[in-house]
Amino acid sequence: MKKAKKQKLFVMKFGGSSVADAEKIKRVARRVHDKQSRGIKVVVVVSAPGDMTDDLLEMADGVSKNPPERELDMLLATGEQVSIALLSMAIQDLGSDAVSLTGPQAGIYADHAHTKARITKIAPSKIHDELKKGKVVIVAGFQGLNPNQDITTLGRGGSDLTAVALAAALKADACEIYTDVKGVFTTDPRVEPEASKVDRISYDEMLELAGAGSQVMQARSIEVAKKYGVDIHVRSTFSEDEGTWIVREVEGMEDVVVSGVAFDKNQAKLSAVEIPDRPGIAAKIFGALADIHVNVDMIIQSAAQDGMNDISFTVARADLKKAVPVVDQVSRELGGQGALVDEKIAKVAVVGVGMKSHAGVAARMFRALAGQNINIEMISTSEIKVSCVVKESDCQKAVQVLHKTFGLSRKPK
Amino acid sequence: MKKAKKQKLFVMKFGGSSVADAEKIKRVARRVHDKQSRGIKVVVVVSAPGDMTDDLLEMADGVSKNPPERELDMLLATGEQVSIALLSMAIQDLGSDAVSLTGPQAGIYADHAHTKARITKIAPSKIHDELKKGKVVIVAGFQGLNPNQDITTLGRGGSDLTAVALAAALKADACEIYTDVKGVFTTDPRVEPEASKVDRISYDEMLELAGAGSQVMQARSIEVAKKYGVDIHVRSTFSEDEGTWIVREVEGMEDVVVSGVAFDKNQAKLSAVEIPDRPGIAAKIFGALADIHVNVDMIIQSAAQDGMNDISFTVARADLKKAVPVVDQVSRELGGQGALVDEKIAKVAVVGVGMKSHAGVAARMFRALAGQNINIEMISTSEIKVSCVVKESDCQKAVQVLHKTFGLSRKPK
Repeated sequence: MKKAKKQKLFVMKFGGSSVADAEKIKRVARRVHDKQSRGIKVVVVVSAPGDMTDDLLEMADGVSKNPPERELDMLLATGEQVSIALLSMAIQDLGSDAVSLTGPQAGIYADHAHTKARITKIAPSKIHDELKKGKVVIVAGFQGLNPNQDITTLGRGGSDLTAVALAAALKADACEIYTDVKGVFTTDPRVEPEASKVDRISYDEMLELAGAGSQVMQARSIEVAKKYGVDIHVRSTFSEDEGTWIVREVEGMEDVVVSGVAFDKNQAKLSAVEIPDRPGIAAKIFGALADIHVNVDMIIQSAAQDGMNDISFTVARADLKKAVPVVDQVSRELGGQGALVDEKIAKVAVVGVGMKSHAGVAARMFRALAGQNINIEMISTSEIKVSCVVKESDCQKAVQVLHKTFGLSRKPK
Repeated sequence: MKKAKKQKLFVMKFGGSSVADAEKIKRVARRVHDKQSRGIKVVVVVSAPGDMTDDLLEMADGVSKNPPERELDMLLATGEQVSIALLSMAIQDLGSDAVSLTGPQAGIYADHAHTKARITKIAPSKIHDELKKGKVVIVAGFQGLNPNQDITTLGRGGSDLTAVALAAALKADACEIYTDVKGVFTTDPRVEPEASKVDRISYDEMLELAGAGSQVMQARSIEVAKKYGVDIHVRSTFSEDEGTWIVREVEGMEDVVVSGVAFDKNQAKLSAVEIPDRPGIAAKIFGALADIHVNVDMIIQSAAQDGMNDISFTVARADLKKAVPVVDQVSRELGGQGALVDEKIAKVAVVGVGMKSHAGVAARMFRALAGQNINIEMISTSEIKVSCVVKESDCQKAVQVLHKTFGLSRKPK
């Protein structure tokens, strides 16, 4: 007896710009219909259309000085609900059977943190039932049901997270993230025109790239993909070409020393100046910042002179307003000179699993920057990444020289 | 021991025009906040803001030639969800605690008829819980959950229905229907400037008025109110004045012979001409119309002449397109001359529980119309209503003379 070949299952995720108007929705519908016509089971995840989320937020601001988060979630969840209904209509219009499901209907459970909830569980029996009936299942991204039975949203990058988590729960063959770029690039093509698309990249590299400000996918989605071994395919909504596969590290990947150059201009440097050099100082400062939910990234403590010390670190620029007074106060309480701020910085990083086996990456990086007279203000390193803080005005020059230095301008094998 | 006075509970329903923009939503919020501040428990039912339902329907038409009803309901339900979230924000901004609930969250269960479902059950435990916590509970009108766990909408007048059904299930002290008119009028003030507001009217009178084209409330909501004895207060969103109470018939109501004059210009007359006069003819014609879901209203069968007969009846003009070919075919199959159509008609009716005890209402009506040279084409009567079909061009004159004849121009006691 011949064993029936198991039908493949794909999760396809489309962002808000892909469903911004009727024509775009119809194009997505054709893409989904084509996939299903090739005998593949399809679960689609969509975001709210175009600017709808912003429009809804504006409406909220119109009626309330401080909109309660539960109600914001109730409001924002309508955006994805509009998308799934319209996409289901467009797909059915092409002759595929389809059904739309809100996050709660799809069995996506989340925690209590309104506007930035985490997915706690996926119970996909409804999705399985509908797939068995031969339907395309269209799920609202960005939303779930919390233990109060309230609708909650998953925060930035939430639709990617929905897609990856569903792919994991459904044991999908792949999770396709459709976007308006062709994939993951060696660096931002607007900064370095010779930037090239990466064919395959490991979760860890992608995590380091995301953390360093690369905008293709949020770190939280990649973490989930890594945990459950979900193969992600980032590709263009507007082309049939292969994009970038984000996958488990495999042999051969390390042949490429550096996979990409990332940069982040949304950071600022904060320093607590001339504070006494004694144990517990750092804990005081960073404890106070943790209390107000400010994440600190790179940290440098200068060598003590005359029993005095400077501590510098980077925070997101958006957090500066609440971070500065706290650092200033703690610093003065410790007998220091208060806080110094430098907003005109950028973080530049080279990333690659190849670093683990290739020595001297950091040295090559520093030499390349020095060759362009770029001063390095802070340095941090991980197993697969070296980051430097430079002047914001040096950022582009730094990215370009590093891109060239590590041979990224030609397509890596 | 003194017994605590039981807290009153009101259901307040606001239509789409009352929540069309931020200012209007804030005004509704103040109204709700004021009510709660007087120690009354409040459940609010709202429709989708302004033209949102039309906008959503247009979006559906943009992506599908024939949008599936399940997905239409998924789409349309977002309208009320936007309203409840925004209204909850606005109410909380005034200092009242509030919580928004979709129809399914509020425990409103409906049948399978997408886009025009009936409410099958209300399980208000969640509403009770939130009321006990001192919250204003804001429920999305027009929607419920069907046995498939799908969102479904309740069709025209669905938000009124939600409000009345909730008032019944919660045993509310009253159901306030806020609208852009001051209440129920003796007739349409645009047709008869002397029309006056009715203070109290019985369910049955209101049902007859609704059936005759009066637009304040749909018959289905009044039927539910009558069944469960819900006192309805129709009143203006823009004024604190009392509106019209729709209540169980009480003594004294019959002192007013006629409560109102209704008219309906959305009817058309259809006739099957010269068909043989034999048993079963009417059943054939009206059976065929029932099969295509066309409701027939007034029916007249002329006296047989030479074994031949005419049958005339009224249908909604919107149904003409599908009704005519069916009537034409059945008529010819029966050996008749086919269908005759007259779209230029209007239905005019006088309504009042007083008719039960006051003889001669119909005669006074016919005399008044004859006095104006208005020809009566069809007549039908019920216990509390007399309806006549007249030429559309005679409609205004007919309404005015009847309004005067039955003494409605002064405020009825």
